[in-house]
Amino acid sequence: MRFKTLLAAGAIACVAAAVPASADEGMWTFDAFPAARMKADYGWAPDQAWLDRTRAAAVRLTGGCSASFVSGEGLILTNHHCVASCLSNLSTAQNDLLANGFNPATRAQERTCPGQQAELVTSIRDVTGDVKGVMAGLSGAALVKARDARIAEIEKSSCTDPATTRCQVVTLFGGGQYKLYTYRKYSDIRIAWAPEAQMAFFGGDPDNFNFPRYAMDGAFLRAYEGGKPVMTPQHLVWSPRAPKDGEATFVVGNPGTTRRLDTEAQRAYRREISLPMSLILMSEYRGRLIAAMGEDKDKLREGEDELSGVENSFKAQMGQFRSLNDAQFTAAMRETEMALKGKAAPGVDPWGSIAAADAAYRQFYLEDSFVKGGPAGYSTLFGYARTLVRGAAERGKPNAERLPGYTDSALPLTEKRLIDPRPVYPWLEELGIAFWSSKMREYLGADNGDVKMLLGKESPENLAKRLVAGSTLADPAVRKALWEGGADAIAKSDDPMIKLALAMDARSREIQKRYDAEVDGPITAAKAQIADARFAAYGEANYPDATFTLRISYGKVQGWTERGNAVPFATYMGGTFDRATGDFPYNLSPAFAAAASKIDRSIIYNFVTTNDIIGGNSGSPVLDKDGHVIGAAFDGNIHSLGGAFGYDGMLNRTVVVSSA
Amino acid sequence: MRFKTLLAAGAIACVAAAVPASADEGMWTFDAFPAARMKADYGWAPDQAWLDRTRAAAVRLTGGCSASFVSGEGLILTNHHCVASCLSNLSTAQNDLLANGFNPATRAQERTCPGQQAELVTSIRDVTGDVKGVMAGLSGAALVKARDARIAEIEKSSCTDPATTRCQVVTLFGGGQYKLYTYRKYSDIRIAWAPEAQMAFFGGDPDNFNFPRYAMDGAFLRAYEGGKPVMTPQHLVWSPRAPKDGEATFVVGNPGTTRRLDTEAQRAYRREISLPMSLILMSEYRGRLIAAMGEDKDKLREGEDELSGVENSFKAQMGQFRSLNDAQFTAAMRETEMALKGKAAPGVDPWGSIAAADAAYRQFYLEDSFVKGGPAGYSTLFGYARTLVRGAAERGKPNAERLPGYTDSALPLTEKRLIDPRPVYPWLEELGIAFWSSKMREYLGADNGDVKMLLGKESPENLAKRLVAGSTLADPAVRKALWEGGADAIAKSDDPMIKLALAMDARSREIQKRYDAEVDGPITAAKAQIADARFAAYGEANYPDATFTLRISYGKVQGWTERGNAVPFATYMGGTFDRATGDFPYNLSPAFAAAASKIDRSIIYNFVTTNDIIGGNSGSPVLDKDGHVIGAAFDGNIHSLGGAFGYDGMLNRTVVVSSA
Repeated sequence: MRFKTLLAAGAIACVAAAVPASADEGMWTFDAFPAARMKADYGWAPDQAWLDRTRAAAVRLTGGCSASFVSGEGLILTNHHCVASCLSNLSTAQNDLLANGFNPATRAQERTCPGQQAELVTSIRDVTGDVKGVMAGLSGAALVKARDARIAEIEKSSCTDPATTRCQVVTLFGGGQYKLYTYRKYSDIRIAWAPEAQMAFFGGDPDNFNFPRYAMDGAFLRAYEGGKPVMTPQHLVWSPRAPKDGEATFVVGNPGTTRRLDTEAQRAYRREISLPMSLILMSEYRGRLIAAMGEDKDKLREGEDELSGVENSFKAQMGQFRSLNDAQFTAAMRETEMALKGKAAPGVDPWGSIAAADAAYRQFYLEDSFVKGGPAGYSTLFGYARTLVRGAAERGKPNAERLPGYTDSALPLTEKRLIDPRPVYPWLEELGIAFWSSKMREYLGADNGDVKMLLGKESPENLAKRLVAGSTLADPAVRKALWEGGADAIAKSDDPMIKLALAMDARSREIQKRYDAEVDGPITAAKAQIADARFAAYGEANYPDATFTLRISYGKVQGWTERGNAVPFATYMGGTFDRATGDFPYNLSPAFAAAASKIDRSIIYNFVTTNDIIGGNSGSPVLDKDGHVIGAAFDGNIHSLGGAFGYDGMLNRTVVVSSA
Repeated sequence: MRFKTLLAAGAIACVAAAVPASADEGMWTFDAFPAARMKADYGWAPDQAWLDRTRAAAVRLTGGCSASFVSGEGLILTNHHCVASCLSNLSTAQNDLLANGFNPATRAQERTCPGQQAELVTSIRDVTGDVKGVMAGLSGAALVKARDARIAEIEKSSCTDPATTRCQVVTLFGGGQYKLYTYRKYSDIRIAWAPEAQMAFFGGDPDNFNFPRYAMDGAFLRAYEGGKPVMTPQHLVWSPRAPKDGEATFVVGNPGTTRRLDTEAQRAYRREISLPMSLILMSEYRGRLIAAMGEDKDKLREGEDELSGVENSFKAQMGQFRSLNDAQFTAAMRETEMALKGKAAPGVDPWGSIAAADAAYRQFYLEDSFVKGGPAGYSTLFGYARTLVRGAAERGKPNAERLPGYTDSALPLTEKRLIDPRPVYPWLEELGIAFWSSKMREYLGADNGDVKMLLGKESPENLAKRLVAGSTLADPAVRKALWEGGADAIAKSDDPMIKLALAMDARSREIQKRYDAEVDGPITAAKAQIADARFAAYGEANYPDATFTLRISYGKVQGWTERGNAVPFATYMGGTFDRATGDFPYNLSPAFAAAASKIDRSIIYNFVTTNDIIGGNSGSPVLDKDGHVIGAAFDGNIHSLGGAFGYDGMLNRTVVVSSA
């Protein structure tokens, strides 16, 4: 795989022989769009009005996706896989909305998605000096505390109406910049239309991150306020036309996480520890899910959303792991780092500080992974319990002293996620907790103090059974009462999940403090130094790593060459029928199959562009030069997975479902 | 982790500062025991008579374990986990021999273990010149073909009585030496005694590879011939005494595989590709097994042996993976390699040849992993089918032209394994084939030719169902008839497993040929060059990598220091009761619990020694200076897992169940 890192763009003189410049790289913030650079490559670039119009319709979904307003009455375009959890939550054995799709006859039938919130950026303000100022002279845990306190204060004082606005300070360039993003938020988001899941995700996991592709991975939501659709005059224009090979495209959305500015030591940690551990753990969990879901139809339906999330993460991380074991790919990153080191001020060694923090973290990453979060990643009920326990403790403190997630600016979404009704499947909870506790024992050892505290004389299976059978947190009214009851209610609760969350809380905070002191503090300080060195050497012409905040990428409709074979830029509706085998996941969904004679097989279905995106961009509108919507980005090709660390314009592609 | 490689022992002057010499390292062949070295360290060493007596009682079990004759009437000491497959094969829902143990009242009740064979080395002859001679001037596939043909000829001509002897040419030092091992073999091996599995494997997977330990991991087999116990006057003497701290110990057995003489490129391949892939695949398979076994008691019993095998391999490979990501561990190996390179003849670069072969292999390792072997690793029935298909084809060729495994010297064991009756569990077969075929599609892609050939329009699940439901190969009589019927019978068979094995055979052979040409051939030639360079630089005072052939290790009874805490050298019977929780895997087995009042809690149960062992050594007798049996080696501690690549005398320990 060839590639080009961010820094190579600036340091091109150093490594030009090995790394060709790739014009389309970059996930740009709206306040720093590289218009001159695009104009040089494309002979045209959007002006400020174009950018402002587009930004005003760009939606972030707090479930982890991107979207856009596409009508004047609050209609939101996103991907089907971004609403799959919602559909799953609203499904019953009698009406499986994932399998059947959702096509309400009237607006009155549109249904609220639990936990979902839509957010629109209304302003971006630089607070770098403010935040960096309070950290001056501090290090370790004190630095982290000061930073978080100042961020909590800025966020609180900047958002005077927490019912309709959200303020969030974003760390860019790993601490080189801090920016305050203000959002207009919409907390009542309803599902308006979704196709059958088998049509949206035709080819399933085998075709995921692959192309050619035949997937109607689109859906519509609608924003409501006061029980009525939100009026959204600043929406994007829908253009139901096919894309043209080579035409310029923009992707506007919220890429989640990239690590292109990480150091060698951080990449080594990911390659040697975190990625393989995560892949191994996900694999066993995936296997347990697959086997359990094979037992009956209810489990198959109830587990589907969880399994597809695991499989998607697995494939994405597998791509990252392969990239980090690709000698050519990593050599170029190493060269880029060495080039910057050569330009940095003598006497400071932030790279060494990061390597030391990484070495320190390796000493307790297992505790950090298993004990700090408890089984929250595997159990909705435990997640509720932890939020309740922490919410009770944190709300009693001054805003600036609370844990992130419990500050005044963060509380509304935390509370919404806690209290929104959503189904809980006891078998899935049990499976998750038994898995997590058996792995915690496996990796920390049966004689570890935390493991003994957790299991006592119980087996992981019996612990899971007892916790799930005894908990009443699946009932939203119980959660609401405990939330409102605060510390007293928590102290009096007999719920075994609450008791477990309480029992683990002290150790969890202890591990977090160690993390702040030995990892977060030193790395925050070092990354700011590296960012400053980078600005000094290459100016501010580059883009920050992705942080699930609004970005714009420019590129073009273009296929690529795979092992000597040209991959065309688009697929056609008719190709679906050629690929169908009749057996899952290559079966046609009933409605799609029934409509076969009405489908124009020559219409472009999915296409690829050179836009630089990453997970979180799912649902992003794909725009043409006029700013019109010609599709929704729903995936990257397999090469784009290495995009977490670097972009290669020859191979990385965004996969789009066409508006046509 | 500190450690010392094999080469560092010779190259000590070069790297002494970093790598302390570790006296007890080494898995020595019986024809090259380092008596002088041991005498220098211990003031005593065994003489030739001691070695000859010991060797004459040392047993290799073809199931992958070690053992020894400990009575004059064919009684064989080994581990419980080495007879677990046998117990599982002989179990029924009514009588679960794993759970209940096996304690026959008379010899007439001892029962034959399917597929098991015991082998005793009777002579070792150097055939290096002979084998290397036929390879002279050849390379690639031609080299592999000439080597294998000559080995087949030597083996056939050296064993005139294939009913009682087996001849096997062993590759040592990666091709630096070839030796002909002649074995007296016993093909009727019966189970004579086994404790309850929960007593043998108390602590289960969490305690596996850990210490302190409380496991009665011992069992007895007996060799029969002509329906009668074999007379074995040359047996070891059983000494039911406790070990003494610091006393010298010997482990005599068959370590399976070490890679201490591998090159940097080979370690990189294992760290970057094969170990993570294997860990990831095993994890999902493990998860599927665990969930399926939770469905009912029959599946729990039927899957137990398979699951514990997977979990054991997982933990062992996880230890290897961690070692190869340990910077200190790998730096020392790199230094050792550089030291040898510095001494090698100029102009030849076998390390570069191996790196090139490794790079070539990376291009088709996925095909090699998934397509070449088919689902044989996950399906007993497919394994039978492949043996039948290949057996029919290969037996029609001259001996020297056959695939390994089908030469005249190998056929008797291949046939025994094929035809011995053993239960087949359809759900387990289905689970395995569905897993393998879904992973093959995942890694090779749905559009890969081999995947299309395999699946056609079927899903992995439906393919697995059809194959298992339609196959009659679970019946030994069917297998026998097909084996004896040869090519005609195979061609006429309608069995879907036979048809699949036939369909995959051509591609499988094609991939093997590519492997021979691009990987095996170049690496065999290069490794021989490296071995010669090593002999030239350091003499022949070192030991070859493990090859599942007879070795002897010397060491001593000794605890170690774990993060500053002393780990005592032994545990006591009474500790079992302290560790028991009542919940699996820390529950006491019924008979053990019932006998609680009769158990002397002060008796030494398990102990550790510094002997250098690896998987395959399980069941090895642990001997004192008198050559008496004071225990059976059944495990290594967690540090010993890195022993695949290097031995660290400070930390690596053998775990032994005491004869006391």
